[in-house]
Amino acid sequence: MVRLKTTEDNMSTTISPLAPAAFPEMPPVAGVRLASAAAGIRYAGRTDVLLALLDAGTTVAGVFTRSRCPSAPVDWCRARLKHGGARVLVVNSGNANAFTGKSGKAATKLTAEIAGKAAGHRPGDVFLASTGVIGEPLDATKFAAVMDQLVAEASPGGWQDAAKAIMTTDTFPKGAASIVRLGSGVVTICGIAKGAGMIAPDMATMLSFIFTDAPIAPAVLKSLLREGVEDTFNAVTIDGDTSTSDTLLAFATGAAAVRGVTKVARLSDPRLPAFRKGFNAVLGDLAEQVARDGEGARKLVEIIVEGAVSKRSARRIALSIANSPLVKTAIAGEDANWGRVVMAVGKAGEPADRDRLAIWFGGIRVAHKGARDPAYDEAAVSAAMKKPEITLKVALGLGKGRDRVLTCDLTKEYVAINGDYRS
Amino acid sequence: MVRLKTTEDNMSTTISPLAPAAFPEMPPVAGVRLASAAAGIRYAGRTDVLLALLDAGTTVAGVFTRSRCPSAPVDWCRARLKHGGARVLVVNSGNANAFTGKSGKAATKLTAEIAGKAAGHRPGDVFLASTGVIGEPLDATKFAAVMDQLVAEASPGGWQDAAKAIMTTDTFPKGAASIVRLGSGVVTICGIAKGAGMIAPDMATMLSFIFTDAPIAPAVLKSLLREGVEDTFNAVTIDGDTSTSDTLLAFATGAAAVRGVTKVARLSDPRLPAFRKGFNAVLGDLAEQVARDGEGARKLVEIIVEGAVSKRSARRIALSIANSPLVKTAIAGEDANWGRVVMAVGKAGEPADRDRLAIWFGGIRVAHKGARDPAYDEAAVSAAMKKPEITLKVALGLGKGRDRVLTCDLTKEYVAINGDYRS
Repeated sequence: MVRLKTTEDNMSTTISPLAPAAFPEMPPVAGVRLASAAAGIRYAGRTDVLLALLDAGTTVAGVFTRSRCPSAPVDWCRARLKHGGARVLVVNSGNANAFTGKSGKAATKLTAEIAGKAAGHRPGDVFLASTGVIGEPLDATKFAAVMDQLVAEASPGGWQDAAKAIMTTDTFPKGAASIVRLGSGVVTICGIAKGAGMIAPDMATMLSFIFTDAPIAPAVLKSLLREGVEDTFNAVTIDGDTSTSDTLLAFATGAAAVRGVTKVARLSDPRLPAFRKGFNAVLGDLAEQVARDGEGARKLVEIIVEGAVSKRSARRIALSIANSPLVKTAIAGEDANWGRVVMAVGKAGEPADRDRLAIWFGGIRVAHKGARDPAYDEAAVSAAMKKPEITLKVALGLGKGRDRVLTCDLTKEYVAINGDYRS
Repeated sequence: MVRLKTTEDNMSTTISPLAPAAFPEMPPVAGVRLASAAAGIRYAGRTDVLLALLDAGTTVAGVFTRSRCPSAPVDWCRARLKHGGARVLVVNSGNANAFTGKSGKAATKLTAEIAGKAAGHRPGDVFLASTGVIGEPLDATKFAAVMDQLVAEASPGGWQDAAKAIMTTDTFPKGAASIVRLGSGVVTICGIAKGAGMIAPDMATMLSFIFTDAPIAPAVLKSLLREGVEDTFNAVTIDGDTSTSDTLLAFATGAAAVRGVTKVARLSDPRLPAFRKGFNAVLGDLAEQVARDGEGARKLVEIIVEGAVSKRSARRIALSIANSPLVKTAIAGEDANWGRVVMAVGKAGEPADRDRLAIWFGGIRVAHKGARDPAYDEAAVSAAMKKPEITLKVALGLGKGRDRVLTCDLTKEYVAINGDYRS
């Protein structure tokens, strides 16, 4: 995976302390042109619409929120995915177009018509995503004022501007890139994401878009995406709340074909493992950035559960710990409160034997065989808890099931951000 | 139900704004004698041990945490319940004796021996409960220093002192009483509880103890308790975290038999409905007080879900709303953010039709048929949100399933309390 650093972005004065030092160097992806604009959806003085134009032959796959009350754009994308092809992506921030009734459905149709007309494609080839406030009607006519300009300006690269246009309460733009070999040629994978709050499996982001010039059949792309999210976006939780709008779309333009890269038509293709590795690295990098930008987060917390009866059981226990307000507030207070970890293991409902549990904070074992570790050095643990990145490991001693999830601490800032977001 | 007010208790200067005006007037329960003392378990300058002596013939029933990692006292009580009889209850605050390994089990045995010896009963007739820090060894020898005095001083009544002795981060003592007719006589039901944090079904309190002088067979008492908690303690959640120590014990001394009240031996006893009503009222009152004393709580929130496919489905949706950090922080911010309610309905995984949803805050309908209510008056809702007690109602429009849960808001104070509890 290639990830080169550029100069630090100074967009905001309140960037998460867990943010990467810089937005990564991201090359253009052949067959993808990007543009962003300020349509005044909600915010003043910043961009809030992203347009991506995709070359003919682009395939698409998507995974979405499992909410029973999805947003209108999620409904729209699900219906469009049946074709497996895409030419245009329109994303707006500031308004999620969720729980907007008939007007929401009409707004998606109108947006697709405006974008399709400007770009010269059918509305059915337009994919949509919206993020922001829920329950407010989205005035899609605002897109008409900027769409011709967006189409005219769309150009290769410009990932950082694209990532900025889709931000809501994010404190930094999120991007990741990977350059990998696909048989005889080299292909590029670039992705952007926005997260911040209302982040929980499944999916564990509000919006993320992945682009590659590899030629990949829709069914293969779908499988890659579904497998890839399992240990990346679906293994991140901020607050246990699942958005109505969670959308991850992957677009494969196939433009690398002109360089002799032949189509990946089957999952059994021997070239695929190398590509999958790079693809998953982009998903994993973006998912981690989402955790690093959890609302109010001051600590990135990696939770590892091992010795569970299965990976599935380990995941559930890890999420029970990751979503526990008492564990999260303890970490905010730099307190290695392993008693609360026991509580969270106990409430997960998964097989666990209290008297076999062992718990580590920052690599230091604090509990062993159902009681405080006799060798537990409070000062060493205290020093580990002051670090911005903390690993919390639990060994159950029952089987070989292991899993890992990422989360962040729960701070007063989280409450401040979310107690004052809409008003 | 009888609930007389006494003068306001001025134990703390930081009492929850949602606290009842006063501790209720609670009569003695024949066959129950209480005493409390300061054993120095953890706190200085306050009582931390409660002793209850129970007359011969007292029956007992209990419900406990469903945690897979229960505390040693929970294990102890579960084993003792098989007999169905009890003579002594010892409760301490400051240390939960949870996740304390072999020493925890030894501590329960030693505590029961100390109390049994002092009171003249077998250790197997002693019930135990502990609340406080998890994972710290409990020094049970401290009970020896106060036990003889506790036995000597035990006397009828004194509920407020009893309720105070079992508090941890509670800001007010919790008690409730009911006097009901049981056939030809009148019986008394008194209960105390402690709550505050780590409160979630099942059970939704850390510790609660109910006492009655009614003569009730163990199997009937068990049924009453299991039914009674369903819409009371199990319908309260503070933070979705389930304690390792949750314990609710009900003791029936049978002392009313001397006044001619004959034993309730069967659930079909025609005298039982009136008793059940009073019994459930005590449970419901205590459960509400627990919600009113949620850590950092500034709002009591009643969540009503109706029109679900079943009561069970309504409960799950109500708990999804009640445990959502985004809903809870919005309420802390006095924001009628019904979009987040939609989110919480959607993530519950229960049948829901986005376009049939209606949502009310404080009796004012803000959303209707999948969109903002056209008649929605922002000023009226804003005024409703400023009140200390808020009802949030969701109508799903699918069936006849209805349920109600109580919770509180999520404030910066919650984070402060829990980020700084152990250190």
